[in-house]
Amino acid sequence: MPVYTCTAAQGTLTGESKAALAAEITRIHVAINHVPPAYVNVIFSEPPPDSVFAGGEPGAPLIVSGWVRRGHPQEEATRLALELSSAAARVTGVPEGHVMVVLQDGPARSAVEGGLVLPEPGEEKEWLARRGEFGRAS
Amino acid sequence: MPVYTCTAAQGTLTGESKAALAAEITRIHVAINHVPPAYVNVIFSEPPPDSVFAGGEPGAPLIVSGWVRRGHPQEEATRLALELSSAAARVTGVPEGHVMVVLQDGPARSAVEGGLVLPEPGEEKEWLARRGEFGRAS
Amino acid sequence: MPVYTCTAAQGTLTGESKAALAAEITRIHVAINHVPPAYVNVIFSEPPPDSVFAGGEPGAPLIVSGWVRRGHPQEEATRLALELSSAAARVTGVPEGHVMVVLQDGPARSAVEGGLVLPEPGEEKEWLARRGEFGRAS
Repeated sequence: MPVYTCTAAQGTLTGESKAALAAEITRIHVAINHVPPAYVNVIFSEPPPDSVFAGGEPGAPLIVSGWVRRGHPQEEATRLALELSSAAARVTGVPEGHVMVVLQDGPARSAVEGGLVLPEPGEEKEWLARRGEFGRAS
Repeated sequence: MPVYTCTAAQGTLTGESKAALAAEITRIHVAINHVPPAYVNVIFSEPPPDSVFAGGEPGAPLIVSGWVRRGHPQEEATRLALELSSAAARVTGVPEGHVMVVLQDGPARSAVEGGLVLPEPGEEKEWLARRGEFGRAS
Repeated sequence: MPVYTCTAAQGTLTGESKAALAAEITRIHVAINHVPPAYVNVIFSEPPPDSVFAGGEPGAPLIVSGWVRRGHPQEEATRLALELSSAAARVTGVPEGHVMVVLQDGPARSAVEGGLVLPEPGEEKEWLARRGEFGRAS
């Protein structure tokens, strides 16, 4: 259900650190927002170094930007962002001073996965049962 | 006015299926949200396969993420998301089980196209008349 | 604190015009939203020309999409979008008729930079003091 996009200039992340970061984002999101791991999508976007700026100068940020369903308590969104930031620094070696995490939320009813409108937070169980009838890969 | 970004690992979509999906997104958005086709922007982002994960493992989702003006009725946003999901699977051959559609909205007054602040939903007509004085390519 | 993503087909922007646009976005954001320049992130995404569509046809838009903290007055967001649009056309040579600017906002408390939850608009001063103790590159 969530979609995370991680952006860093080419050369900032290795294949190994991308896999490790995807695994950590998935683990943390599952623990806090209660969806099965298979529903956590993580994409990496790696523009060339001359396409990444901070303060108008070539920069080296790692930006983790996530879309999540609206309706989770704010304190959980804050905790999610803090844990993602800390994990991103830890598994990639990028200093946490260069890590930024942004969570954007939107109405579950404006999103569709596997042909089904997403459930409101807290109503995942019935949705997953319906979803199971189709199968993730159906 | 809307901006759709379609993300799938390299090799998931052909040039033909990208053109077909852009055409379908445009057709469906025009039918439901009542803007002229020329104002529907569709971008494809195709990271290498080692940059796309679902459940912490290399994955093959097709994610269609759209920005639309806030103020459309929720049921129309839901219908738009459902029709986009179904069309995306149909024209690309990606199983709908792997398709995700997310619509995010924002205030029309926080967006500018062709030098003009976007109109609220329902106020497109006057805006388009003003816009015509400039010309799309002016 | 803000993250701007500029999207245009490969070949639309030169290295020089990307640097100039990043500098202008930074200057304008700093002037209107009162954050130090070092906190303005700008990323360029340049898909191949066959991946950019307007009206279902290959197109040539320049799309500037920004994430900003929620809570700034709407009139300032509108002014920010208008000035960014005008600057983007001026420094890149892309006709303003092809430029689109979208500002999306989200709760400051759903975002983390340098390990610290972002401040609400107007509360930057204390936050920057705390941040200084860590150092941007710490």
